[in-house]
Amino acid sequence: MSNVPKTGLGVLGSGKGSNFVAIAEACARNELNAEVRLVISDVPGAGILERAGERNIPNRHLEPGPFRTKLSEEAEAAYVEALRAAGAEWIVLAGFMRILKGGFLRAFPLRVVNIHPSLLPSFPGLRAWQQALDYGVKHTGVTVHLVDQGVDTGPIVSQATVPVLDDDTPERLHTRIQEVEHRLYPEALQALVSGGVRVRGRRSYRN
Amino acid sequence: MSNVPKTGLGVLGSGKGSNFVAIAEACARNELNAEVRLVISDVPGAGILERAGERNIPNRHLEPGPFRTKLSEEAEAAYVEALRAAGAEWIVLAGFMRILKGGFLRAFPLRVVNIHPSLLPSFPGLRAWQQALDYGVKHTGVTVHLVDQGVDTGPIVSQATVPVLDDDTPERLHTRIQEVEHRLYPEALQALVSGGVRVRGRRSYRN
Repeated sequence: MSNVPKTGLGVLGSGKGSNFVAIAEACARNELNAEVRLVISDVPGAGILERAGERNIPNRHLEPGPFRTKLSEEAEAAYVEALRAAGAEWIVLAGFMRILKGGFLRAFPLRVVNIHPSLLPSFPGLRAWQQALDYGVKHTGVTVHLVDQGVDTGPIVSQATVPVLDDDTPERLHTRIQEVEHRLYPEALQALVSGGVRVRGRRSYRN
Repeated sequence: MSNVPKTGLGVLGSGKGSNFVAIAEACARNELNAEVRLVISDVPGAGILERAGERNIPNRHLEPGPFRTKLSEEAEAAYVEALRAAGAEWIVLAGFMRILKGGFLRAFPLRVVNIHPSLLPSFPGLRAWQQALDYGVKHTGVTVHLVDQGVDTGPIVSQATVPVLDDDTPERLHTRIQEVEHRLYPEALQALVSGGVRVRGRRSYRN
């Protein structure tokens, strides 16, 4: 793997950045043959920016514009420009709480990846672990998928299951789901950046 | 277990009856402390009736009435009467292709059980294995649930996961799901008839 040039990643996040940390550590261990070139947050002072700074990874807050759940067109253009200038080939969403629209997605076609804390298509949207508990399922999980214009609807790259226990609280279940996220996301990204995943329509296959 | 009286089951099915056979065999092995008292099919000559006959289990075709996807009110009343007369305490749906309405469900409150070939709430309705393949999930499974007035929406008793393989065809995936069904259904029924399951709202718990 050491002779293959590292793939440039751009990471977008709004929160603590625990998935970003898992990805950065996988890069440092050479389990993920990539390098995070830029971390952008829509939230000033977000934990993810601090975690990047501690690792000397370029990071910045970029204004999202006036909307609450998406980026403005101008903001999307600024995000795209910054990510391209930094050499980001793949865009990794790590707790980024805004929907990306056509302009951003067309700039990185089939190169924007997200992780979601459920077995999609069950429980899209917010607080998926709470939704799973409320519904009463016995197994939930984690989904890594390519991002399309829907909410949590793009082609699935990888999934892992997490059992729901009788005595689970939302917090306990969420913690176990996050542990699985931190394993699954770097592994799925390695498959993607190494060309190990073929996507045909909605289905993906490992080469 | 041998001193506990056997619970009477009534089984409804429209097809081959492979889940019925799994249940009857679990009863014969005393892994399920129950006895199938009557098998009813809405389809004359259905395989499930033949499988019951071979085992000397009472079975009959009962007319479903004029509708295609449900029983008529008169038919529901006839089914309830036959099941009660046979001593059925729990009603087990095993490939029964009609929706049961309030009248039937009120006759056996929280005592009607179904099995569905997906991890609900993903892929309710028909040919769930095909839906899972078309969506591109990496894990699907089996759900045993109590029946309410929705389609595949009642409280979940038990679930098991089944991986989707890159080279799966609908037939292969369906076969692997059915193998899991034949293990999960008797096990979930044993938990139910032995009082081992508490249902609170949508969630169920093992005692």
